[in-house]
Amino acid sequence: MAESRERQDDLRWRGLKIIQNPDWFCFSIDAVLLAYFVTLKSGDQAADLGTGTGVIPLLLAARSRQIHTLGLEIHPQVVEMAQRTVLLNQLDNLIEIRQGDIKTASQEVGRGKMNLVTCNPPYAKTCSGKVSGCSLKASARTEILCQLEDVIREGAALLNSDGRLALVHRPTRLTDILTLMRQYGVEPKRLRLVCPLPGKEPNLVLVEGIRHGRHSLAVEPPLFVYQRPKQYSAEMERIFRGDFLNIEW
Amino acid sequence: MAESRERQDDLRWRGLKIIQNPDWFCFSIDAVLLAYFVTLKSGDQAADLGTGTGVIPLLLAARSRQIHTLGLEIHPQVVEMAQRTVLLNQLDNLIEIRQGDIKTASQEVGRGKMNLVTCNPPYAKTCSGKVSGCSLKASARTEILCQLEDVIREGAALLNSDGRLALVHRPTRLTDILTLMRQYGVEPKRLRLVCPLPGKEPNLVLVEGIRHGRHSLAVEPPLFVYQRPKQYSAEMERIFRGDFLNIEW
Repeated sequence: MAESRERQDDLRWRGLKIIQNPDWFCFSIDAVLLAYFVTLKSGDQAADLGTGTGVIPLLLAARSRQIHTLGLEIHPQVVEMAQRTVLLNQLDNLIEIRQGDIKTASQEVGRGKMNLVTCNPPYAKTCSGKVSGCSLKASARTEILCQLEDVIREGAALLNSDGRLALVHRPTRLTDILTLMRQYGVEPKRLRLVCPLPGKEPNLVLVEGIRHGRHSLAVEPPLFVYQRPKQYSAEMERIFRGDFLNIEW
Repeated sequence: MAESRERQDDLRWRGLKIIQNPDWFCFSIDAVLLAYFVTLKSGDQAADLGTGTGVIPLLLAARSRQIHTLGLEIHPQVVEMAQRTVLLNQLDNLIEIRQGDIKTASQEVGRGKMNLVTCNPPYAKTCSGKVSGCSLKASARTEILCQLEDVIREGAALLNSDGRLALVHRPTRLTDILTLMRQYGVEPKRLRLVCPLPGKEPNLVLVEGIRHGRHSLAVEPPLFVYQRPKQYSAEMERIFRGDFLNIEW
């Protein structure tokens, strides 16, 4: 058996640490942007679908100690690693990592039990060619184990009325996201495009819907990751540093 | 009868003139942005639904002499004014303005006859309160005479396979636009948000769909109208001046 390339990285927000294995996958800016974007309410019971390293539950805990997050992950060896991260940060009172399948999440966890569901799903369609060699890495990137419709259907089923579903995805899938959310009774309420640079096409979209929400979408100002090549925008610097976090925690 | 406040304005593109009556309505930047955004193909047979002053057919003619546009307008006195604008610009070989109702446009004009349909529809829902006093002005702003679903249903019915439907609307209605387009078989293919200023929420969205198109949306870079208060962006200056138009016409 090859030696593990597991390592421990710094999340910056509240000085939290995260254990990652680059042979499987490492979290990306996408998860950070989703955790920054999503609306949190004190007392939220949240579920993060396909939690991987547990990065989103950790970042939500960094935003507020008043919410509890269940991270669902299909690969047992990744569940075990994420559980060690939770303990390392002494956040086992706020975060639970459990083995489970997105496709049957509402059966496993219970319908209508959550105020918030987040997901940073695989972006690529299975038919879109190139699939990464390692099946674990591939399932994080490509819709092999679950498709967008599974995420939205199960997310909707997990939510109670007025609960929020927040996703990050590719803008190419925007029509799919908005139509599926409405189809499953989660009305899109907030949307933000993420552009790598001014003048460039967005390569990410953040969407938050509300279960049984009224029809009206607030499209927020585009977020620019870089303001010029190699120089992060002021907002992105603030996000990385966690400057927007409440001082009290 | 009160004296008419009718006046003649300069469209800038190719030095075209437009007759407008501020007691009814004047065209806005929205129509200019739609005419700039839409994909034109040589030989297009186009229809502009709710054409008003005829501004969109005029601007499409300024972009290309290789397309023919039918402008449909419900108010007879506005039809007559737009027809005078067409003659004033000697564009009666490229533009026809006809009295007609958006709600029955495909019956009146013929199903599957068009390669392109454009529309700058009324934005406000009828239930959204404030309705302008003059009924003619009100019908240009508020969904009194036709609703978004009428525009998309009739637009789709007018198009042949691969034909394009291009709209400008408020971002609040984005979910409605994308779901209705898909429902009526016009797949959204291009989308662009228009922001008044950097850091501000978009207040317009431009969408182009293709009849029977493949599912995949290209979201383009956001367009900023001003780069700072009172100073237009470089792109907006180029649009107003018509710098992007082919030299040959």
